[in-house]
Amino acid sequence: MAKTFLCTKTNPVVQTKSGKLRGFFWDGTYIFHGIRYAVAKRFQMPREVEPWEGIKDALSYGYVCPILNQPQPSCEAMVPHRYWPQDEDCLFLNLWTPSLDSNAKKPVIVWLHGGGFSDGSSIEHVAYDGENMSKFGDAVVISLNHRLNVLGYLDVSSLSEKYRNSANAGTEDMVAALRWIRDNIANFGGDPNNVTLFGQSGGGAKIWTLMQTPSAFGLFHKGIIQSGVFDLLPMQGNNGEAICHALLQELRIPQGEGERLADVPYAQLAEAYKKVAPALQKKGEYVGLAPMQNEFMLGDPRKVGFSEFAKTVPVMVGTVFGEFSFGPAIDRTALSHEEKEALIVKKYGNAAQELISLFQEAYPEKDLTDLLFVDTLFRAPSRDFVIKRAAHTESPVYSYQFTLDFPYDGGHVAWHCCEIPFVFHNTDKAPYCNIPGVSDRLEEQLCGAWVNFARTGDPNHRSLPHWPASTPEDEALMVFDRDTTVKHNFDAQLLDVLVKAVPSFSFEETDEPIQH
Amino acid sequence: MAKTFLCTKTNPVVQTKSGKLRGFFWDGTYIFHGIRYAVAKRFQMPREVEPWEGIKDALSYGYVCPILNQPQPSCEAMVPHRYWPQDEDCLFLNLWTPSLDSNAKKPVIVWLHGGGFSDGSSIEHVAYDGENMSKFGDAVVISLNHRLNVLGYLDVSSLSEKYRNSANAGTEDMVAALRWIRDNIANFGGDPNNVTLFGQSGGGAKIWTLMQTPSAFGLFHKGIIQSGVFDLLPMQGNNGEAICHALLQELRIPQGEGERLADVPYAQLAEAYKKVAPALQKKGEYVGLAPMQNEFMLGDPRKVGFSEFAKTVPVMVGTVFGEFSFGPAIDRTALSHEEKEALIVKKYGNAAQELISLFQEAYPEKDLTDLLFVDTLFRAPSRDFVIKRAAHTESPVYSYQFTLDFPYDGGHVAWHCCEIPFVFHNTDKAPYCNIPGVSDRLEEQLCGAWVNFARTGDPNHRSLPHWPASTPEDEALMVFDRDTTVKHNFDAQLLDVLVKAVPSFSFEETDEPIQH
Repeated sequence: MAKTFLCTKTNPVVQTKSGKLRGFFWDGTYIFHGIRYAVAKRFQMPREVEPWEGIKDALSYGYVCPILNQPQPSCEAMVPHRYWPQDEDCLFLNLWTPSLDSNAKKPVIVWLHGGGFSDGSSIEHVAYDGENMSKFGDAVVISLNHRLNVLGYLDVSSLSEKYRNSANAGTEDMVAALRWIRDNIANFGGDPNNVTLFGQSGGGAKIWTLMQTPSAFGLFHKGIIQSGVFDLLPMQGNNGEAICHALLQELRIPQGEGERLADVPYAQLAEAYKKVAPALQKKGEYVGLAPMQNEFMLGDPRKVGFSEFAKTVPVMVGTVFGEFSFGPAIDRTALSHEEKEALIVKKYGNAAQELISLFQEAYPEKDLTDLLFVDTLFRAPSRDFVIKRAAHTESPVYSYQFTLDFPYDGGHVAWHCCEIPFVFHNTDKAPYCNIPGVSDRLEEQLCGAWVNFARTGDPNHRSLPHWPASTPEDEALMVFDRDTTVKHNFDAQLLDVLVKAVPSFSFEETDEPIQH
Repeated sequence: MAKTFLCTKTNPVVQTKSGKLRGFFWDGTYIFHGIRYAVAKRFQMPREVEPWEGIKDALSYGYVCPILNQPQPSCEAMVPHRYWPQDEDCLFLNLWTPSLDSNAKKPVIVWLHGGGFSDGSSIEHVAYDGENMSKFGDAVVISLNHRLNVLGYLDVSSLSEKYRNSANAGTEDMVAALRWIRDNIANFGGDPNNVTLFGQSGGGAKIWTLMQTPSAFGLFHKGIIQSGVFDLLPMQGNNGEAICHALLQELRIPQGEGERLADVPYAQLAEAYKKVAPALQKKGEYVGLAPMQNEFMLGDPRKVGFSEFAKTVPVMVGTVFGEFSFGPAIDRTALSHEEKEALIVKKYGNAAQELISLFQEAYPEKDLTDLLFVDTLFRAPSRDFVIKRAAHTESPVYSYQFTLDFPYDGGHVAWHCCEIPFVFHNTDKAPYCNIPGVSDRLEEQLCGAWVNFARTGDPNHRSLPHWPASTPEDEALMVFDRDTTVKHNFDAQLLDVLVKAVPSFSFEETDEPIQH
């Protein structure tokens, strides 16, 4: 059935600090695509947008940040993508809102995309579209691009004073976006004093990064970290002199003319980087691609402690059951109990029997073969984060796990990114999410918790069992599944044994798309 | 509401000539993305796919053909895009079908995308998705990529006998896809003896190109040419020796080693081409980018006559009111009648008064300012095509025009591509199409006509007034609008005067995205 579309010369038009913007109205939602929130020269800090006369259109998504490698679409049934033209001029955000009343003060919920700090975009996943969430949650939903990889996170400060925080330029972009939101969101019906960040994978890591970034303090008020707590190796100090030297050499730029690195076409810079970085990385040298701990960014809160600001920010933290288990599902019905046990022994050796018993205790409803796919890479640091954060009682921390078994491939454990369509109320855009009698309720539970948390700081709502905040002694997890229930420290022992049984994960050893 | 999704290890799996393919089932439709229909080396003819063991996944769209210029998204509210990673290895098709019964013999309707012969892809427009049309029309819908621009239409035959038909390689790809359909479509529920091509802009031109391509004769049975009849300059014979010479020189490849052109990375080849082609084009030299008239391709039927095969192929031919009128709408309510007339005089000079009177006769329900945007570039050649084709009574030719005024920009004449969501029954994916009380009926009228024509060769169905085939004396157009009606030769005089009044269109003079 036809819905209502409106886009005249003057409606919807919104006055921002720099000038007027025109979006469109569609089925109850005002939509603005590709709003420029800042401008930036390569390696330098973002600056405010210059004022303009007249009305600018915000009807087309902006360029997304260039990435180092060409994507190879192969996993679309699990992670359906939306690609977009790339350009360094990529500081754009997208906005969905139910109201343009400057007194409406709707909660503002800002999506930070995944892909580590190197990949992805504000519109990369088809389920990043904010229309349904805005409508369901009566909230302003925003997604944004920022600079990535060598453009956003490479320390070239040794080349020029202008580049002094290039190692965190991408994060400075996000701070600029948050400032834009503070200055302008009221006219889009939003409450500048109620801004919640949510993000998955790298997007989740961006949230705890911003919680430790003094220039972002006060610009947001809550955070939802989805599969976003993990170890970022490059964060531990160090500097970019070695990688700069290698890049200049590779690009035949004389050492005294290092600033010319800012003029090299991106494709060439990326090729040079990919050529010289691996050898340096092997030697343990800094090669960038994640925020640098410095006076701008205080460091991983699990290691250096939570900033005073971070202690006051209510957070939700969670993971999914299988995370990087993108491979083929095991055909469970084809295997006998003995064959399943044999697979587990093959993977976990001596620890197999203990793990089987701990697994059956933690996940009594799951098939034994699922033990082969239990994630620890995200889950163990996330539990660590929750417990350490819970020690600060200034504000609550809520923990969750998403453990739904999907119909894809005849039955597949939950993988990295799989919960995103539920969060955005976009399961209609991702066929694999659809399980009649199950997925609608689960979508209401997740999206409802997310928007309720954004509105009030408490995710509880009537479609959920009561979800208490965690304490250092009691990690109270909302386990989202066919039968969503709260469990307490339920996998603590399993995690301990698993982490010891599995050699620690190396980013170099996986063939999986690790950046998502 | 959750829909039904199915994708197990063995279902849906279809046996093709070369091996087994797995797709997925979604809400009543079997969907296969990224089926490889051929392989090809650069400049060479496509070859059949090698057989494989086991089951291959067809769950991700394949690479699309690289294009010469980076797209600059700016017109998304009018033409919403879906971009995708590019690679020369791009010979993939996508398929939506209501049945996998090899006796079902559903009509097969194959989409050829627009973008001239240089741009676009099988999934470029969000409305190219075939699911809704397949369901509404109970038909097998297919979309496909093929080689474009220098990869698909550059004559480098002087460099090697291997490249003898490189000037039509992209068309050879489409022939290969039609052969794949002939050989395999029964197992996807389709009738290999009832294949209809439909395409818009370049996609429409591809249809009449294939009607004149002997190797395609018999591989399809009907054609629907949407805004696809226009003059393709490079088609008039000539050869690529000059452009080859210039390319080799630019790329510093010795003239004796011309075959090395096949190994130059695409980006480099494209840069070289863009550097050397304009000067040659100015001199009137062949620079490719459209099919070449030769023994493979007989030439433009309006100039060289319709092939014996083309005479037997029922066709529908049509255009939209404004075509390349992508610019801002005129605010009709802000102008007096005198101001409107002044604009018309400014554009058409002495012919203004005659045009106003002819326009008001042809389009009594339209605003006078719409006269500023009446298309002749596509409409005049399309009328010429219809009349010439109607002279051959072996099979019918149906003519249409799409003249809906859209709510975009406060009221905008129909632009190039605007009818595509109606044809695919995808107006839910393109907000600008939505006019409560109007667009649902129009969608049923268009999509219904398209699929009925595909099924039977006659577009008439109960939601339409009777639509007669055209004759050389009577161009009987179905005019799709709020009040869809049949008109006879209704704009013939207007066109005659307009074509004389407007200096002939030059591709070089427009800033608009001419390739769509």
